[in-house]
Amino acid sequence: MKPVKVGVLGLGTVGGGTVNVLKRNATEIARRAGREIIVTRASTRDLERSRICDTQGIALTTDPYEIVNDPEIEIVLELIGGDTIAKDLVLKAIENGKHVVTANKALIALHGNEIFAKASAKGVMVAFEAAVAGGIPIIKAIREGLSGNQIEWVAGIINGTGNFILTEMRDKGRDFADVLAEAQALGYAEADPTFDVEGIDAAHKLTILASIAFGIPLQFDKVYTEGITQITRDDVDYAETLGYRIKHLGIARKTSEGIELRVHPTLIPARRLIANVDGVMNAVLVKGDAVGPTLYYGAGAGAEPTASSVVADVIDVVRAMTSDPENRVPHLAFQPNALADIPMLSAEQIHTAYYLRLNAEDRPGVLADITRILALHDISIEAIIQKEPHENEKSVPIIMLTQNTLESEMNAAITVIEQLTTVTGKVCRIRLETLG
Amino acid sequence: MKPVKVGVLGLGTVGGGTVNVLKRNATEIARRAGREIIVTRASTRDLERSRICDTQGIALTTDPYEIVNDPEIEIVLELIGGDTIAKDLVLKAIENGKHVVTANKALIALHGNEIFAKASAKGVMVAFEAAVAGGIPIIKAIREGLSGNQIEWVAGIINGTGNFILTEMRDKGRDFADVLAEAQALGYAEADPTFDVEGIDAAHKLTILASIAFGIPLQFDKVYTEGITQITRDDVDYAETLGYRIKHLGIARKTSEGIELRVHPTLIPARRLIANVDGVMNAVLVKGDAVGPTLYYGAGAGAEPTASSVVADVIDVVRAMTSDPENRVPHLAFQPNALADIPMLSAEQIHTAYYLRLNAEDRPGVLADITRILALHDISIEAIIQKEPHENEKSVPIIMLTQNTLESEMNAAITVIEQLTTVTGKVCRIRLETLG
Repeated sequence: MKPVKVGVLGLGTVGGGTVNVLKRNATEIARRAGREIIVTRASTRDLERSRICDTQGIALTTDPYEIVNDPEIEIVLELIGGDTIAKDLVLKAIENGKHVVTANKALIALHGNEIFAKASAKGVMVAFEAAVAGGIPIIKAIREGLSGNQIEWVAGIINGTGNFILTEMRDKGRDFADVLAEAQALGYAEADPTFDVEGIDAAHKLTILASIAFGIPLQFDKVYTEGITQITRDDVDYAETLGYRIKHLGIARKTSEGIELRVHPTLIPARRLIANVDGVMNAVLVKGDAVGPTLYYGAGAGAEPTASSVVADVIDVVRAMTSDPENRVPHLAFQPNALADIPMLSAEQIHTAYYLRLNAEDRPGVLADITRILALHDISIEAIIQKEPHENEKSVPIIMLTQNTLESEMNAAITVIEQLTTVTGKVCRIRLETLG
Repeated sequence: MKPVKVGVLGLGTVGGGTVNVLKRNATEIARRAGREIIVTRASTRDLERSRICDTQGIALTTDPYEIVNDPEIEIVLELIGGDTIAKDLVLKAIENGKHVVTANKALIALHGNEIFAKASAKGVMVAFEAAVAGGIPIIKAIREGLSGNQIEWVAGIINGTGNFILTEMRDKGRDFADVLAEAQALGYAEADPTFDVEGIDAAHKLTILASIAFGIPLQFDKVYTEGITQITRDDVDYAETLGYRIKHLGIARKTSEGIELRVHPTLIPARRLIANVDGVMNAVLVKGDAVGPTLYYGAGAGAEPTASSVVADVIDVVRAMTSDPENRVPHLAFQPNALADIPMLSAEQIHTAYYLRLNAEDRPGVLADITRILALHDISIEAIIQKEPHENEKSVPIIMLTQNTLESEMNAAITVIEQLTTVTGKVCRIRLETLG
């Protein structure tokens, strides 16, 4: 058969890595796909810039529209990223009847509904394995590998930068700001690290995971998002003492009331496998009703791990190109007409357990006041630790773990506790999940 | 569209679980597949026997050939297992133009080459996700999710019974025989546990993993297989002291000389995620050249986890049924005409590190003799521990870790060491892999 001609938009980290993998593993890929897959054209902002890939045999252009409009190109790889020109290019490629492979989580999370509708109407595929958890084939695992299950929940470490920071804080007792600066120097974190440390990047990915797990439209605006900037070394240490680790998790859970979608720092039992996923690595824990818990682990970013997913998508697309569009794997795992309108729960409606840390005067009755307030809000306490006062301070840190409760009750209780004259400052609250 | 009619051969644990999952999740499955999938017929040895599934609406028979010969049935689920009647039934189903889904690792490992050739000739699919690591979608992950990679090695905990025994030995300091008896009582281990504890079950699964990882024909007879029956509590403890855990691993590795295929107890660093996979759970670590290390974890056996994989395969088959057979995912990941004839290495040709334990007289010069013999065979020592003598014994246990070496050299060295008059009994040798 004739080789499949692929056009690459963007020759940065992911684009360059993809070109390298397609070239280096060309024989292996053709042995699998049954056809050669070759990159004939690529676009780049600057033709003169040095890059990580060899572009021999590839016609370069600075105008990506030349590629999406090229009748020779069968598959367009959108590896520019971001939420600006990428959308227009992808829509144009679809309009031109081309299949698209993208690594762009923001694009899919924010505009996927529109993109997939257009792709279905044109009978083309838009594949996006690389958009979530880099090289881990998590989209395929949930969408196809666990397709016999009702997915109950998904919980993932889906931002490598955040996990690197939390790992360093725990392993080396370092402060957040200090580790962030190093991550930026190492190139793990962007100059503007907001997307990583405030959880926006993870929220994009969680949006996608939730859709394919539960069969719902993409709803990025429904994700409750909290970053890791408020996590202190004390909290990391207290968690460890109690047998927990703090991880920045994206959690999607289907309950009888609706769907929880949330990204936040989370205490999880240290003995869980996912609690031991360290550094820049990613992992996603998926609970299905038939299969039970399953975990998928690997590199969540980087040139070649991301390229691994892009290339796998290209091979899938090549195989399915000649098939009846009606019988392909649906973009969001469920048939477009079978997506469900399930209520999305607000942060106040979440059920979870909590780690609380507060400073209170070290005298009789204080703890009784606090526990009474919690009881009035139906909050059961699992454990309490009272620490020795810091030097020159008369207040002591009190750490509590609660059982599962409704977040609105917890918010109300915290408001009352903070009004106690015996309690100084704010109550630090971190959610806790047993992931059992 | 019309519902797809499925016939089930065998209503034991896996067959019963599959019927249950297909019924309970029928709505969810149809939302994904775009078609209803219904079990219309099932075969069972004894019509009167009580079983785990509700068979309402399913025509039962004691003759499985009725099902494989039924023109109404489009997909046959072979869930009888074993290496007797299953093969003939599967071949007959293929001959009749039916697609087959099987959970039978022995069948695929021993007869897969013949079965896939026949299936290709007839243009039907034979899916076998459930044959390896139960509910973990590991076949799909390697065959499709990592299809852009050259797979370098695969290492898996792929027998739950063996892992349960080793976990109990470590956690509770119990003896092998004692834990095995409990595993049998709990139903984890068969009355004849040979397949589990001698590594044959794992060798079946490794045979399949190696084929789809490297693009080679199935070659069960080339697997070096060693069970866990010789592992003692002492070894488990010494390994722990040295920062390692003992796991029963299936390892397939492609080297410049050929392919290593081996199942044996293995010391692995305790900090590796896979070292922390405990009890009956399975996990497979896959190293690709682009993606790096990835890990897949979940239940490796049981009614519903296995059913999860069977049902996912059924949905895949339903989607691909109308497609051009030439463009489907190849059975062994690589196009049948692209399978490679790569040399399979014998046990003597393996490169690995070792844990050695021996008893020697506690006097000067003994250790020097041993280390000199190792050096003569080009074996470098990584660590040595000499223990205090057991009570009333004048010999002391010596434990050594070596660096990577050729197994034939190690065998030769051990033969010489065992001839030393200062050394008592056999040298215990366990392989060690860093999995880095």
